[in-house]
Amino acid sequence: SRVIRAPRGSQLTCKNWLTEAAYRMIQNNLDAEVAEDPKNLVVYGGIGRAARNWECFDQILASLKDLSSDETLLVQSGKPVGVFKTHENAPRVLIANSNLVPQWANWEHFNELDRKGLFMYGQMTAGSWIYIGSQGIVQGTFETFVEAGRQHYDNHLAGRWILTAGLGGMGGAQPLAATLAGACSLNVECQQSSIDFRLRTRYVDKQAHDIDHALELIAQHTAAKEAVSIALLGNAADIIPELVRRAQAGGMRPDLVTDQTSAHDLINGYLPSGWSVEKWKAAQKDPAQHAALTKAASQSCAVHVQAMLDFQSMGIPTVDYGNNIRQVAFDQGVKNAFDFPGFVPAYIRPLFCEGKGPFRWVALSGDPEDIYKTDAKLKELFPNDKPLHRWLDMARERIAFQGLPARICWLGLGERDKAGLAFNEMVKSGELKAPIVIGRDHLDTGSVASPNRETEAMKDGTDAVSDWPLLNALLNTAGGATWVSLHHGGGVGMGYSQHAGMVIVADGTDAAAERLARVLVNDCGSGVMRHADAGYELAVETAKKQGLKLPMVK
Amino acid sequence: SRVIRAPRGSQLTCKNWLTEAAYRMIQNNLDAEVAEDPKNLVVYGGIGRAARNWECFDQILASLKDLSSDETLLVQSGKPVGVFKTHENAPRVLIANSNLVPQWANWEHFNELDRKGLFMYGQMTAGSWIYIGSQGIVQGTFETFVEAGRQHYDNHLAGRWILTAGLGGMGGAQPLAATLAGACSLNVECQQSSIDFRLRTRYVDKQAHDIDHALELIAQHTAAKEAVSIALLGNAADIIPELVRRAQAGGMRPDLVTDQTSAHDLINGYLPSGWSVEKWKAAQKDPAQHAALTKAASQSCAVHVQAMLDFQSMGIPTVDYGNNIRQVAFDQGVKNAFDFPGFVPAYIRPLFCEGKGPFRWVALSGDPEDIYKTDAKLKELFPNDKPLHRWLDMARERIAFQGLPARICWLGLGERDKAGLAFNEMVKSGELKAPIVIGRDHLDTGSVASPNRETEAMKDGTDAVSDWPLLNALLNTAGGATWVSLHHGGGVGMGYSQHAGMVIVADGTDAAAERLARVLVNDCGSGVMRHADAGYELAVETAKKQGLKLPMVK
Ligand SMILES: NC(=O)c1ccc[n+]([C@@H]2O[C@H](COP(=O)([O-])OP(=O)(O)OC[C@H]3O[C@@H](n4cnc5c(N)ncnc54)[C@H](O)[C@@H]3O)[C@@H](O)[C@H]2O)c1
Ligand SMILES: NC(=O)c1ccc[n+]([C@@H]2O[C@H](COP(=O)([O-])OP(=O)(O)OC[C@H]3O[C@@H](n4cnc5c(N)ncnc54)[C@H](O)[C@@H]3O)[C@@H](O)[C@H]2O)c1
Repeated sequence: SRVIRAPRGSQLTCKNWLTEAAYRMIQNNLDAEVAEDPKNLVVYGGIGRAARNWECFDQILASLKDLSSDETLLVQSGKPVGVFKTHENAPRVLIANSNLVPQWANWEHFNELDRKGLFMYGQMTAGSWIYIGSQGIVQGTFETFVEAGRQHYDNHLAGRWILTAGLGGMGGAQPLAATLAGACSLNVECQQSSIDFRLRTRYVDKQAHDIDHALELIAQHTAAKEAVSIALLGNAADIIPELVRRAQAGGMRPDLVTDQTSAHDLINGYLPSGWSVEKWKAAQKDPAQHAALTKAASQSCAVHVQAMLDFQSMGIPTVDYGNNIRQVAFDQGVKNAFDFPGFVPAYIRPLFCEGKGPFRWVALSGDPEDIYKTDAKLKELFPNDKPLHRWLDMARERIAFQGLPARICWLGLGERDKAGLAFNEMVKSGELKAPIVIGRDHLDTGSVASPNRETEAMKDGTDAVSDWPLLNALLNTAGGATWVSLHHGGGVGMGYSQHAGMVIVADGTDAAAERLARVLVNDCGSGVMRHADAGYELAVETAKKQGLKLPMVK
Repeated sequence: SRVIRAPRGSQLTCKNWLTEAAYRMIQNNLDAEVAEDPKNLVVYGGIGRAARNWECFDQILASLKDLSSDETLLVQSGKPVGVFKTHENAPRVLIANSNLVPQWANWEHFNELDRKGLFMYGQMTAGSWIYIGSQGIVQGTFETFVEAGRQHYDNHLAGRWILTAGLGGMGGAQPLAATLAGACSLNVECQQSSIDFRLRTRYVDKQAHDIDHALELIAQHTAAKEAVSIALLGNAADIIPELVRRAQAGGMRPDLVTDQTSAHDLINGYLPSGWSVEKWKAAQKDPAQHAALTKAASQSCAVHVQAMLDFQSMGIPTVDYGNNIRQVAFDQGVKNAFDFPGFVPAYIRPLFCEGKGPFRWVALSGDPEDIYKTDAKLKELFPNDKPLHRWLDMARERIAFQGLPARICWLGLGERDKAGLAFNEMVKSGELKAPIVIGRDHLDTGSVASPNRETEAMKDGTDAVSDWPLLNALLNTAGGATWVSLHHGGGVGMGYSQHAGMVIVADGTDAAAERLARVLVNDCGSGVMRHADAGYELAVETAKKQGLKLPMVK
């Protein structure tokens, strides 16, 4: 079985740094430290791949090695299909993954094509070669908590606590993110093995023996204004209602309530109340028990959501974290299940209105020092952004690099270009050992239409309009991003999303500086435009402040 | 009510000829000679619009007037939403029309957004500003009929007759194309105004009083081997079944059966049997009646398709002409609706494999002489292409210009760039009075995924893969086309297609020559690539002969 690792250092394998960047990043996506299942080319997100198969992977590398600075490689669902003449300011790679004509855009048709070797699931950053490991989810969760703190607690989360459940693959980022945001957290998890894993990797600080102990620890650490995370073994469908009863009786109240159990999958994702984990695992493996399991899990979700609603009615901010638990409860008869919002309309959309999203960059040198230098540069560029400083410090301290050293942080319109140009200067001056690759998630301000997630409940009802991500990709191509991708079905599955990726290389040249100045403004500018068009005041203001030209926005 | 007509001559209104071209072409799309319903901004194809509303239209013109040579205007479903900094070799306009996330990609959701003023149907060349009236489709239809004659009647269409319906924007080309191909035709159309328009523009020769008279005329002209076209006022859902009954009873039989009513749009495109045109128009405007209208139209389509199937079972060649009527009938329970093929697999795909498709150009001067000079230039460039010479002669003689003088002819890979560069030279030398706008339909070799039409029955089963048109749009944007568009739902309606438009201006500069050389090769090259990837030998050969770089094609 092959072991893939991107080349490091300042020596070129390809003809120039733009193609070298693509050459290294596709390999970095498949680094054993980065990818979930590299031998099957799977990067993350179930079956999100970097290339269709090994033959395609090898040919992508060969084509990139050979590519001139006036040529562009086309990649169609992980297969390199053509090389065409373009020009120096055009992207070097254009990618389209997993796109299907709508009437055929379902898993059944996808699987049929996939089985025949004709297709590939690109997820978001898997097929567009800018995945950087679990740092991404920690940061996104951190931003969500910080924004909640800004909205509800005047930016002060010290002495506050977050109540949630689920310490799985994504949910496990919650305690660390809460700590980085300055809050305590109580994390209910029904499997000791999940808690052990998070304790071992320092994503959670301590485990409580029982509810009383948990509340004692929370009381103690919030009083001391220490941001400590507590795990509690138990079933959320029992513990959350019990915490409601105590709060109603004058006990402690959480300051934010959410949940990341896998309620979207009622067979494998949510332990029913009263069931042991052993009974649950056995039922998962036995199709004859699936109906009963689904029913029991659904009923428990309804109880769980009712408890969340109860907290909300006490005036405590409560949000769905994208696991579909509201829908499950609604289907069980909890008529007002959707009274609490999803996390995007609640916390992320205001950031999107300012063009803020998961900006990220990677040091092609492979040297962590290059990232530390860019960390320092960012603090220098934004001296008053306290959460940014805190994030950068804690990320350096708490989050291990996976593959090529990388950093993520949410920057907005007017900030990303500043950062990109500064990095380019550092490459030019030799301060950094090799060029920097700049990219972002497809979950970003202007790059996605996904009505059950990123574009849930848009103000004007345009949740499903996918003109916007298509325009985003065309604009980034026009501006001269280094590679641009258009994907379908990422995050929420076939039929439910359309989104675009963008990566641009700071190779220290003046030409790169011009491209960075354009693309990093346009990319998030198009997100501010999309939100201004939907009627968000904050986006309209941001557009005005940043001097965007939006012809129909008054 | 406003009367729109594009400016003519060599005087600039905008800052340069690239934006001037867009400025004139959007207006030309709405010229009363060109558009089906200009006062509602409808160009053709049911409700295919050039701009979302008049306010948007005015602002598009204003933005184009102001646009610099390093700026790009973004248009989202007919609304000008942003102007961003790009560079001289980037497109001046990027357009995304009617795109919806697949699960929401249906007429119901479209209509909801459209009613609220949040959306627009772009059809193909309506929303991408390169519609040139019925001429645009004449040659395609001509080629189709000629190919049908070659396959079924040993190249002799004299004394044969074609039965069809629909004399709208595109369908109106059928009688003239049949005549040019040497056949008689009977054209059923439910609106007298559509017939009048075709009579006036010499696209149809005569109108019959009723069925008997129509068949009498057909009998007379086929006997005399005269290629005469007959219009008949009536509902195809009544008349086609009646013609079946007569044929079954020993009456006259058509030699080819097809249809171009707008069955892809069940609210605006297909008159239900038993309904008056007045009742139909009123129901179109009243959302409360849309469900009933859709139902009635669908049922009539089912009857219509059943009659076409009946003709087919008599051994008469029968094809779907890309209006999705088979799908409508199938959904209504006509299980074998897809027994007759679409016209693309039947007649057009071999042309696509050579990169051939509906290349077109427009003289911005407004002077017909400019077109005649380009006609002559083409004959000079391709001295041995007899069908091309014959086409150009017939077109000049029989086809009236609508709006700005324009010409269409199907050219393939290696031919389009030759033509484009020659036109650019003619502009440079002053032989032509003003620049030439070069474009094509979205129905082309590399620009569309539409499983019920252009990509029906692809050799490898990738009919529904829409990566290809997305890559086409990205590549043309990268290459420097003047405007690029991405549309959904054209031709076959919401949910059934994804396609891309491309327009490039020959303004006589050296920079334009470089862009033309790239874009006109890449645009149809990407179509040859798509067909080679699907395993068509002719496309593989074409790619080799033309020196395309296709990494995975051996
Ligand atoms: N919208 C977003 O951006 C976003 C991001 C991350 C995750 N999510 C959603 O969050 C959910 C969690 O994702 P994940 O990757 O962590 O899933 P996962 O399956 O890896 O983890 C779920 C965890 O919940 C625990 N659990 C199940 N039932 C429980 C119960 N009744 N009480 C307490 N704990 C219970 C499980 O033991 C497991 O550890 C998913 O539904 C996912 O789709 C959404
Ligand atoms: N395959 C191709 O190359 C191709 C090209 C263009 C259009 N088309 C398809 O052909 C169809 C027609 O296109 P168009 O631009 O002419 O549309 P259009 O809407 O301009 O014209 C449709 C015409 O059909 C008539 N009609 C509607 N219902 C009728 C009925 N029951 N009986 C008789 N006549 C009826 C209307 O009055 C109208 O004149 C569309 O579905 C389009 O997508 C296919």
